[in-house]
Amino acid sequence: MKLELTKEFLERLQLMVSNEDSVAILEELENVHPADLADLLSSLQPEESKYIFDYLEDEISAEVLMEFDEDYRERFIKLLSTEEIVGQVDNLETDDAADLLGELEESEKDEIISQLEDPEHASEITDLLKYDEDTAGGLMHKEFITAKTYWAVDRCVVELRRQAEEVDRVYSIYVVDKDDVLLGILSLKSLLFADPKTLIDSIYIKENVHYVKTHESSEDVAAAMEKYDLVSIPVVDRQNKLVGRITIDDVVDVIKEEAEKDFQMASGISENVESSSGVLKNTRSRLPWILIGLAGGVAASQIIKGYEGQIDLNPALAFFIPLIVATAGNVGVQSSAIIVQGLASKDYKYQGLFKQVGKETLVGMLVGLICSIVIFGISYAFIDDMKLGITISISLFLVVVLAAILGALVPLILDRIKIDPALATGPFITTANDIIGLTIYFVVAYFVYL
Amino acid sequence: MKLELTKEFLERLQLMVSNEDSVAILEELENVHPADLADLLSSLQPEESKYIFDYLEDEISAEVLMEFDEDYRERFIKLLSTEEIVGQVDNLETDDAADLLGELEESEKDEIISQLEDPEHASEITDLLKYDEDTAGGLMHKEFITAKTYWAVDRCVVELRRQAEEVDRVYSIYVVDKDDVLLGILSLKSLLFADPKTLIDSIYIKENVHYVKTHESSEDVAAAMEKYDLVSIPVVDRQNKLVGRITIDDVVDVIKEEAEKDFQMASGISENVESSSGVLKNTRSRLPWILIGLAGGVAASQIIKGYEGQIDLNPALAFFIPLIVATAGNVGVQSSAIIVQGLASKDYKYQGLFKQVGKETLVGMLVGLICSIVIFGISYAFIDDMKLGITISISLFLVVVLAAILGALVPLILDRIKIDPALATGPFITTANDIIGLTIYFVVAYFVYL
Repeated sequence: MKLELTKEFLERLQLMVSNEDSVAILEELENVHPADLADLLSSLQPEESKYIFDYLEDEISAEVLMEFDEDYRERFIKLLSTEEIVGQVDNLETDDAADLLGELEESEKDEIISQLEDPEHASEITDLLKYDEDTAGGLMHKEFITAKTYWAVDRCVVELRRQAEEVDRVYSIYVVDKDDVLLGILSLKSLLFADPKTLIDSIYIKENVHYVKTHESSEDVAAAMEKYDLVSIPVVDRQNKLVGRITIDDVVDVIKEEAEKDFQMASGISENVESSSGVLKNTRSRLPWILIGLAGGVAASQIIKGYEGQIDLNPALAFFIPLIVATAGNVGVQSSAIIVQGLASKDYKYQGLFKQVGKETLVGMLVGLICSIVIFGISYAFIDDMKLGITISISLFLVVVLAAILGALVPLILDRIKIDPALATGPFITTANDIIGLTIYFVVAYFVYL
Repeated sequence: MKLELTKEFLERLQLMVSNEDSVAILEELENVHPADLADLLSSLQPEESKYIFDYLEDEISAEVLMEFDEDYRERFIKLLSTEEIVGQVDNLETDDAADLLGELEESEKDEIISQLEDPEHASEITDLLKYDEDTAGGLMHKEFITAKTYWAVDRCVVELRRQAEEVDRVYSIYVVDKDDVLLGILSLKSLLFADPKTLIDSIYIKENVHYVKTHESSEDVAAAMEKYDLVSIPVVDRQNKLVGRITIDDVVDVIKEEAEKDFQMASGISENVESSSGVLKNTRSRLPWILIGLAGGVAASQIIKGYEGQIDLNPALAFFIPLIVATAGNVGVQSSAIIVQGLASKDYKYQGLFKQVGKETLVGMLVGLICSIVIFGISYAFIDDMKLGITISISLFLVVVLAAILGALVPLILDRIKIDPALATGPFITTANDIIGLTIYFVVAYFVYL
């Protein structure tokens, strides 16, 4: 059932909550997908949604909890007793359980783990908590299905049936040896269509098997799954023992966050802010870049001050300061955005750094030339000062070319020295270009008016 | 086998190509994944890679062709004869085949379709070509597996084995009635573990089945698959007849492109440019925004000219022009980026427009206040002009608040009137804020120096 979440529906639901009409609520929300329930509940105050939450089935409420966005979950979880959290963790898959525990205080973590119902579940979660959340180990879960090479298909089906109970989504079966070393992959399709007496050894895929190691970065995992179109990938430790599985739904989030992070950084937002984040978190994440920009502005004011004599002689020079700095900023942001995206999709693996910067230089020259001609035309038609027109045109050309080169070069260099290139875009490039642009402008003016 | 693509390897390969040493090439490239082959070949000139391409197995070369990025494929395909293209299309899955044909001239399309080996493949491709590429119909393929409710599990397995030959990745089986109307989904897992005599009717999932209609936008398909963690989704026509299937690998590309498009638009890049795109395409996609920025700069120059008298009286006012415009730009870009991302992830479905703008206003006031205090401190310590310090501080506060409001309001309004809100970010917001910022600055100066 697809739920249309209208304002009217929300108001009706709020009324049911304040009337404590649990029967009506449950009837209304029957068969609604946990992801939709999470959307719905998180548009209510945590106290209101807790009332509904308590009436949901255990499995459903655990899923809803993990579908909340992080900020809302943080507020919501404060309303749950330790006992209630233990109940939720019991029902979560290992990766979600580890993520949830990761959001709690250290002391609370241990208390919850010690109270879990199933000791195997508890030890699996404990194991997952060891890994950095930005690695394959941090993404994987412990629910997967294994088979042995010497099983026949019919025995395999029996064994798998037992294992499959706790695994929600089975895409393929991992074939391991007696030490749990990964040997290959068995597809459900080949298992389904094979003769019952066939040995697994003769139907599983041994070559070109994709896997990742626990310490590989989540970006590398995402890149591999995307490139090879995989829906799940086995995770092995340093001894090639199978320790987990990563499914595409978790990786889609990584891919999206990665792309969004680049956009946010390029927009000068330093922390991961969501639209639902509070005013203070929002301000904190934005202030650093604004203050850097402010420092750049102060620096720019000193440069202009240094050329005050020229402005005194020809005040019209001041008029075009915004034009110079804005164009430098715009061109720099474009160049760096293209390079950052290229780096993110690993486009430059086989290309020299110089080739790419060379292309940006050409583009900059072309854009700069067109801008110069346009601005010279405008100044020729409207301003009665040939020297001013020449100054603006020449400096605009130089500024655009330099901004393009800088916009390309800085992220490429940052990437080489293993700093996130997205840092370079946005306010940082803009500020640097402002200062360089102004300097060029006044130096050109100096020579033109000499 | 994972291929490490080093510069040395590439050079060795180029040498093999120029020596026409096909045996060595094939040995070197055996067992390499088509996605890696595509990476490798596209770092060579099309003429060189064509030599290698011709030696690949048919199935492999078809996959390699579709793994090329669009710009490279466009150049590469010019080297193929119509006959060769027909051969490739014969080996492609229907969605890839339709995508490839979509990149060709109309007349060429018909010629190729008429020469295809399998008439069913040809008619499926023809059907797919009808759909807009940005809809579910444009994303789907025709390779899927269906079952009937009245089959028993053992009969089902026999029937499916026949169907499964042409389907590469089987995730689930679609249950249809005699008119091909979609009834539900059967998981491979439940089929594998069911008793052979069980009827499909009793094991397939009838409720909460997710599907999309052919005319739904690819963004909506991506949102649904992402939200409900699906690896494949059935596509039905307006009469609910099953007509295709969309798998997650195709949707991952949509999700990524969507996020990248927002980033590019916010950076002032109007067309989809990849790092591999040529200089002219690159320039063309960037010029519009630069010219808009230029027009903004000219407008700004006229505003400053209007306040020339004030600059004459106090030349130091000109020094802080870059500071005012840069800060306004930075704050505006931040606000709009947050709103654009919120809109992209549908965060505001249940929130009023005013609530969000209200929050941005609060953030703007906080950021503005801090900036004002900082800049007043600096000017108090270093500049011997109290009035100037007051002017900058007051106008900075006003400019930041207004930039935050505008940055939030514009994308929200554009979204309401169904224009892509990402258009609002980047150069457009920056330019508008420059002009408004300057006006505020000089008006404040007028009153302070009165």
